[in-house]
Amino acid sequence: MDENQEALELQFDQLQAALAADDMKQFRELFLELHIFEQGQFYQSLTDEQRRQMYAYLSPKEIADMFDVIEEDNIHMTDYLSEMRPGYAADMLAEMYTDNAVDLLNTLDKKQTAKYLSIMPHESAREIRELLHYEDDTAGAIMTTEYVSIVANQTVRSAMYVLKNEATAAETIYYIYVVDQANHLVGVISLRDLIINDDDVMIADILSERVISVHVGDDQEDVAQTFRDYDFLALPVTDYDEHLLGIVTVDDIIDVIDDEAASDYSGLAGVNVEEVSENPMRSAMSRLPWLITLLFLGMATASLISHYEELVSEASILAVFISLITGTAGNAGTQSLAVAVRRLAMTEDKERSFLGTVMGEILTGLITGAITGLTIFAIVSIWKGNPTLGFVIGIAMMFAITVANLAGSLIPMLMDKLGFDPAVASGPFITTLSDLTSVLIYFNIASLFMQQFIGT
Amino acid sequence: MDENQEALELQFDQLQAALAADDMKQFRELFLELHIFEQGQFYQSLTDEQRRQMYAYLSPKEIADMFDVIEEDNIHMTDYLSEMRPGYAADMLAEMYTDNAVDLLNTLDKKQTAKYLSIMPHESAREIRELLHYEDDTAGAIMTTEYVSIVANQTVRSAMYVLKNEATAAETIYYIYVVDQANHLVGVISLRDLIINDDDVMIADILSERVISVHVGDDQEDVAQTFRDYDFLALPVTDYDEHLLGIVTVDDIIDVIDDEAASDYSGLAGVNVEEVSENPMRSAMSRLPWLITLLFLGMATASLISHYEELVSEASILAVFISLITGTAGNAGTQSLAVAVRRLAMTEDKERSFLGTVMGEILTGLITGAITGLTIFAIVSIWKGNPTLGFVIGIAMMFAITVANLAGSLIPMLMDKLGFDPAVASGPFITTLSDLTSVLIYFNIASLFMQQFIGT
Repeated sequence: MDENQEALELQFDQLQAALAADDMKQFRELFLELHIFEQGQFYQSLTDEQRRQMYAYLSPKEIADMFDVIEEDNIHMTDYLSEMRPGYAADMLAEMYTDNAVDLLNTLDKKQTAKYLSIMPHESAREIRELLHYEDDTAGAIMTTEYVSIVANQTVRSAMYVLKNEATAAETIYYIYVVDQANHLVGVISLRDLIINDDDVMIADILSERVISVHVGDDQEDVAQTFRDYDFLALPVTDYDEHLLGIVTVDDIIDVIDDEAASDYSGLAGVNVEEVSENPMRSAMSRLPWLITLLFLGMATASLISHYEELVSEASILAVFISLITGTAGNAGTQSLAVAVRRLAMTEDKERSFLGTVMGEILTGLITGAITGLTIFAIVSIWKGNPTLGFVIGIAMMFAITVANLAGSLIPMLMDKLGFDPAVASGPFITTLSDLTSVLIYFNIASLFMQQFIGT
Repeated sequence: MDENQEALELQFDQLQAALAADDMKQFRELFLELHIFEQGQFYQSLTDEQRRQMYAYLSPKEIADMFDVIEEDNIHMTDYLSEMRPGYAADMLAEMYTDNAVDLLNTLDKKQTAKYLSIMPHESAREIRELLHYEDDTAGAIMTTEYVSIVANQTVRSAMYVLKNEATAAETIYYIYVVDQANHLVGVISLRDLIINDDDVMIADILSERVISVHVGDDQEDVAQTFRDYDFLALPVTDYDEHLLGIVTVDDIIDVIDDEAASDYSGLAGVNVEEVSENPMRSAMSRLPWLITLLFLGMATASLISHYEELVSEASILAVFISLITGTAGNAGTQSLAVAVRRLAMTEDKERSFLGTVMGEILTGLITGAITGLTIFAIVSIWKGNPTLGFVIGIAMMFAITVANLAGSLIPMLMDKLGFDPAVASGPFITTLSDLTSVLIYFNIASLFMQQFIGT
């Protein structure tokens, strides 16, 4: 792709020159040759003055095609909109695929949205308004209304004719949805099926009645799972009365999968990895809320140790192993958290009983704890020549790991039961919580054997 | 989807009954009505005896269609294969899409693979052998050879005719690739373009010469990024001489994105979340390697504290804050690790200079450290009525966080530079390492102010 890249840069330079020379014809010719994504790359490399020049050269439809590809997660989109004359921007929004226009309008304040809707073509405004109603992260929020639907009582030839007319406007023409007079979804036929059948075959004879669809209120994660299972390129969305409302296409599902992965990853790390700024001050501000909250939880651990200060002053050897025990238990808790969150995300595995999972996790904790505990028992006994100390550290390690394992799996499972996203139970939260329980376990066990350590 | 589910379960029961009654006609009728994914669900719910009965009822091609959908990450696939007569299994593999057959064969040992290849149709074996050569995680390893290609010198009508003939075998017919006599990729045309143009138009006049392709050795993550950028449903794969070798389809890209997300997530947690077993012993065995390795790193921290044991015995108050400082620095390190891994995954951001990123992360660390340090200074000064102690804890906290932040971003960046996957720098590794540096910083600062604490 390197020669491609060079050719592309050359063309970008020529486009810049055409803008500078105010040569609209040359600019349009070069620009419309580019792939839409590349048009977007060029557009985003410009100054606002150059972009204003582009609005004069290109139609709202041409800009809309480009915006359909660059809109995802681009923080400058609202700036771009405000550069355009309101009428131009409204036309542009009307020409975009409805789902993308809605995403874009959702980033504006309500007043601005209302302004654009009031000056755009009535039909487009109506479609956009309908989609604006749907809750975030549902099938309704990611669907588009540009699909092709036909009735069953016609031949392949006439269906192909319909398709030919709607091909330019539709977001996908590779599935054609079959509806009855009341717009109930009754079947689906792929373009592949249309192609391999003869022109005179009736649609009713070749359509698939077993159509997989999602409901408009379904969670976008479940919609993504249906895409994964069936390897579809698009899925129809219906209301609870099986009326066809729109379609979700696979490119939007890739965004959903990316977003969900980033949010799980962010949860585990206790930081929003998508709000990455190059400004250290802003980065710090996005990380501090978690850090300070956890600092207070950490203070609970500190004040717990404070209770045992006398014990520590008499047997300072105990201080040596605090971080080893809290650290190892924290590591085990993070592992069990990640496994639990992942398991909850895999819908198929949800059927396993709550109690079964918890018991399994306790057992896993006991096994890892016992082996880790035995290892540290051997190390400490030899290193410090003190098997009693080794025994205390080993036993404390075993219980601390078991409890951390249990917390790591129980907390996300409880959050899931209560209807929260289990992924927000962050790794740092689990490790900080497990510091507290580990210290509690450690000093209680050490107290039992206290006489042994005095003066060591 | 609930009524769907009920209808499906009813049909599964009827299928079971047909198997029990040995009614092949009834079974085939009901089975072939199902969507392929549902066929797979039914198949996987059977006993091995019932599955053997199915092989007698269905052709290798019919089983192959189902295997194309269920093959991903299914650990029982090799068992299924070994249940079939070798000739049947070989025919089945030949009928699968080449990329899926290759995935499946890659899970077998070489002897078995060779056996199946030796008894399958020659042409299929040749195609599979070619794909088996490609390295894991490259475009070559995920591409398939079932694409449609045509030459430019023909009309839309004749291209549609070619398409009609190849539609059943091809994995996608929605892009048609245009090649010259030597099979060099020279253009692409979408089925949408064929549909909207008249029958007599020449392909040469409407094809897009600016075809985006990937090279066979490209990393699958880069291929996924190209899909994200351009919203394609398929991409052509070429060798370094621009010969067309195959295509990658979007369903495989969804698997790639899922796999990469799971591997990033696993890395952050220090456990392979994909190898989830319900057997606690197995779970424990998959988690122990990291835990024990980190235990030894933790021992370094313990022996470091051991050096300061005398200091602790004289000023036991110091022990109270060990876990607070190591814990908070660990949390900060995990945040910075996650941000760094994420930034490295976004290719666009790679251009930012190494030094710039490191300086930014140090600054972020200093800011978060200063604010956290100030907070803890205030709390400790009031709680313990000892501003000097508060100062020591606060300063130690600030430096510990700064160092943890730096380690969290530097380590994945160095791994990336050295050609490793930065995501394997796990969260638990960073926290355990930061325990060591935090303790070092803490006790060194405390030593400087030692006289103040003796006897407190």
